[in-house]
Amino acid sequence: MSLVINGVTKIYKEKNALDDIQLTFEKEKIYGLLGRNGAGKSTLLNIISNRAFPSRGSVNLDGEKVTDNEHALDNIYLMSEDNLFPSPLKVKDVFKLSEGFYGNFDWDLANHMIKAFDLDPKLKMRKLSTGYRSIAKLITALSVPCDYIFLDEPVLGLDANHRELFYQFLLETYEERPRTFVLSTHLIEEIANLLEEVIFIDHGKLIKQATVEDILGEGKTLTGPKDLVLAATENLHVLNIDLLGNQATAFVTGDLPAQLPGEIRLGPMNLQSYFVQLTKRNGEAK
Amino acid sequence: MSLVINGVTKIYKEKNALDDIQLTFEKEKIYGLLGRNGAGKSTLLNIISNRAFPSRGSVNLDGEKVTDNEHALDNIYLMSEDNLFPSPLKVKDVFKLSEGFYGNFDWDLANHMIKAFDLDPKLKMRKLSTGYRSIAKLITALSVPCDYIFLDEPVLGLDANHRELFYQFLLETYEERPRTFVLSTHLIEEIANLLEEVIFIDHGKLIKQATVEDILGEGKTLTGPKDLVLAATENLHVLNIDLLGNQATAFVTGDLPAQLPGEIRLGPMNLQSYFVQLTKRNGEAK
Repeated sequence: MSLVINGVTKIYKEKNALDDIQLTFEKEKIYGLLGRNGAGKSTLLNIISNRAFPSRGSVNLDGEKVTDNEHALDNIYLMSEDNLFPSPLKVKDVFKLSEGFYGNFDWDLANHMIKAFDLDPKLKMRKLSTGYRSIAKLITALSVPCDYIFLDEPVLGLDANHRELFYQFLLETYEERPRTFVLSTHLIEEIANLLEEVIFIDHGKLIKQATVEDILGEGKTLTGPKDLVLAATENLHVLNIDLLGNQATAFVTGDLPAQLPGEIRLGPMNLQSYFVQLTKRNGEAK
Repeated sequence: MSLVINGVTKIYKEKNALDDIQLTFEKEKIYGLLGRNGAGKSTLLNIISNRAFPSRGSVNLDGEKVTDNEHALDNIYLMSEDNLFPSPLKVKDVFKLSEGFYGNFDWDLANHMIKAFDLDPKLKMRKLSTGYRSIAKLITALSVPCDYIFLDEPVLGLDANHRELFYQFLLETYEERPRTFVLSTHLIEEIANLLEEVIFIDHGKLIKQATVEDILGEGKTLTGPKDLVLAATENLHVLNIDLLGNQATAFVTGDLPAQLPGEIRLGPMNLQSYFVQLTKRNGEAK
């Protein structure tokens, strides 16, 4: 079982919002879908969940095209910033509607989360703060029976305690009932521990897909006197170099030379730094 | 020169949204104002900037009450989630309006930031994404001549690269023209390096004010077998204990005993963990 994005292109106002995306989401894995603002993540998620249509290419679940395919779409859930529910609805009505639509709603989990987050299910969705609206949507997303759950900006407006609580619930429900989760967020460092694989999208293109382990293993920082750092990294794969006076920090991937000058300090690169360096734009510096 | 919050209480629907807040913001310092969702941060910021009135107490700038005091309010700027500008306005018109109101707008800095963030100043505010709307507001906040700048959720919707760029601009403008910045955000760990002092608010009360250095110096984690950790921390100041099977992690502050059992690992506590443990609510656990 897998969800395959098959050469998906989306042309919008004569621009390629998505450009020939080829990608497979395997079953029972947790993915990070990472990209800058405007990179095309939400467009891709909308196409996967049949809220938008590709200009070319297709999305297939177990070989079946998902477009307008109710049977396939029953297995795909997208939590997104857009509010699809009529705003006078109460939180508990949203849960009931979701049960009606997808069946088999996990009320045990939902009630457990309602209590832990101190959410009042009798409140109307539109009365909730940004943070609590996210919480109500997260509870829905974790309680529906779908095998592919996509979470677009899941922790928007959540305070640090609530974010931590959500990450715990996600891991617990994943252990109890493994399914595929795809998290798209700008808070990269916080979710690095949760992810098995990371997909980077930039300017509508898939630019990298790798395990978190591989990325953390291959990324290094070299900091030291500018001349020495520039010389030492000349033949390496350099993502970027930050200059500060006579000092430089180079962000590199791949193998390093066996010997480095003693003045150069070698450091690890975390997932967020890796992302920032990989997707930095020309002229985007101070 | 200083901004003094003098016993400010705000009663809202018969509840104390703020309860006798006593606090001084000194000149030319960078503060973090940290609290859970609903803790009272935005209410306090609205009172400081004359958008709301205290039920009791006052806010004084250099001894002058700020309430409806144009001269004092000229020196206080609040960037907040609420959009105070009429939505058909273009970004550049917002800058011009701010210049008209506060005078001495720093066009050099604004133009530098417009370029670095790749913001189109001819766009209407309401056409911008959440992230770019935050960027337009941040540029305004850093370019006005006020000595007290309050930033409520400054990086909402910004991707990791743009957040990093903003932190760099903040430090640079602070060095060039020192003034007081107060940052209120849920992304605590990212701003820990920027702050000199941190103010924690919970349930409308000031619960702690300290330098970041002191907090990082006093917070420790003790991890090991549950029985040993419970015994070792019995007479310590424990913020919280996380239990996981037979293992426990205790979050403690203050002095530790000279000797700890070898099975207990001692670790540092970062600012975000400190905050999470300090403000954890009863029953807020899985």
